[in-house]
Amino acid sequence: MAPWGERLAGVRGVLLDISGVLYDSGAGGGTAIAGSVEAVARLKGSRLKVRFCTNESQKSRAELVGQLRRLGFDISEGEVTAPAPAACQILKERGLRPYLLIHDGVRSEFDQIDTSNPNCVVIADAGESFSYQNMNNAFQVLMELENPVLISLGKGRYYKETSGLMLDVGPYMKALEYACGIKAEVVGKPSPEFFKSALQAIGVEAHQVQTMSMENTTARRAKSHHQSLRQPWSPQA
Amino acid sequence: MAPWGERLAGVRGVLLDISGVLYDSGAGGGTAIAGSVEAVARLKGSRLKVRFCTNESQKSRAELVGQLRRLGFDISEGEVTAPAPAACQILKERGLRPYLLIHDGVRSEFDQIDTSNPNCVVIADAGESFSYQNMNNAFQVLMELENPVLISLGKGRYYKETSGLMLDVGPYMKALEYACGIKAEVVGKPSPEFFKSALQAIGVEAHQVQTMSMENTTARRAKSHHQSLRQPWSPQA
Repeated sequence: MAPWGERLAGVRGVLLDISGVLYDSGAGGGTAIAGSVEAVARLKGSRLKVRFCTNESQKSRAELVGQLRRLGFDISEGEVTAPAPAACQILKERGLRPYLLIHDGVRSEFDQIDTSNPNCVVIADAGESFSYQNMNNAFQVLMELENPVLISLGKGRYYKETSGLMLDVGPYMKALEYACGIKAEVVGKPSPEFFKSALQAIGVEAHQVQTMSMENTTARRAKSHHQSLRQPWSPQA
Repeated sequence: MAPWGERLAGVRGVLLDISGVLYDSGAGGGTAIAGSVEAVARLKGSRLKVRFCTNESQKSRAELVGQLRRLGFDISEGEVTAPAPAACQILKERGLRPYLLIHDGVRSEFDQIDTSNPNCVVIADAGESFSYQNMNNAFQVLMELENPVLISLGKGRYYKETSGLMLDVGPYMKALEYACGIKAEVVGKPSPEFFKSALQAIGVEAHQVQTMSMENTTARRAKSHHQSLRQPWSPQA
């Protein structure tokens, strides 16, 4: 690897993932990853613009930020790009009224959204709410639409909790895609639009940003969309 | 369509699907499809060999046959080819001990199978048992195996109950395939081995059989494997 000075030449901003980079989620609010509280403090004290960019969709930004602040991180809600607010913007722009197959923890992000007489489905990492009944409800909504729209907050396969590996939203997105013979629209990483909105928020171009993500695969995939997005690295590297 | 005499020239046997051909499942044991009880009686009174070939995986054969007999059908357990017994044979042959993600109604078919310390997953139309917890258990079993084996009893997208469309096993099979980056082995229609075992049971060759199935897609797919399998027709045709 090239030395720091060389690697950061031309870099004006940093996109930080949260889960797996700042902390590991789990019972009791999770645990901070060693060195990450200090790393964030140093970055924010530097000349670099910092944006937190997460696919977290079990919690509202308010809840997530509260949890991170309790772990010692210097972070505020306005610094976080998350898929739920991005999805809300799409829903409003396109006049979509979703059936929400989501975790109760993130429901408050959709407070301003009309969910009557659904004409689309929004699916997120719903955890225990991925019951057969809820999946079947989402399926029936989609099957009754002439042009079924399925919006998925991320498409992760699984994530790690302190208790073990947990199924993420991706497998359930695939299940509905197969059942209905449709293709979901993914909001969140690795969607290029999602990265763009994070960059816009800090006024930095794609070629001027360094990403820090646990998900190398995801980052590589994103890189193929954004040729100018620089190599990812982890804070432990 | 060609007249009956012409269409049946050379036909020695008939494979009958059950759900959607003989009856529609649903509350209170479902309802017989008009004319089907008489059609089965006529077929069994003819020179033709008859075999019932189903992907039903929510009930044991005993329960299914009991239900059909109550609806007036002349049918016995030994005349039914179903995926659970076929899966049991594979499990025994290959020394596989499954984690069973199945409906309680079909569990008795696996009574003779060792399920301790699982080294594979068997998934069937589990209905309400497709909870997040059960799906995650299956996922964790697969992720801990060096060579993960996922056996799926059919791969149907959905089926119709009197109460509406219901997600079948296929979407959940796809979910686990995506989560683990693997490909399931399908036991049941449209697997060629499954049709072969039904034909062997009545001693009829593929080119001598007529299939009667609701699932035209499935039948077409099967036909591409079995070029000699004849055109499907429905009892209402």
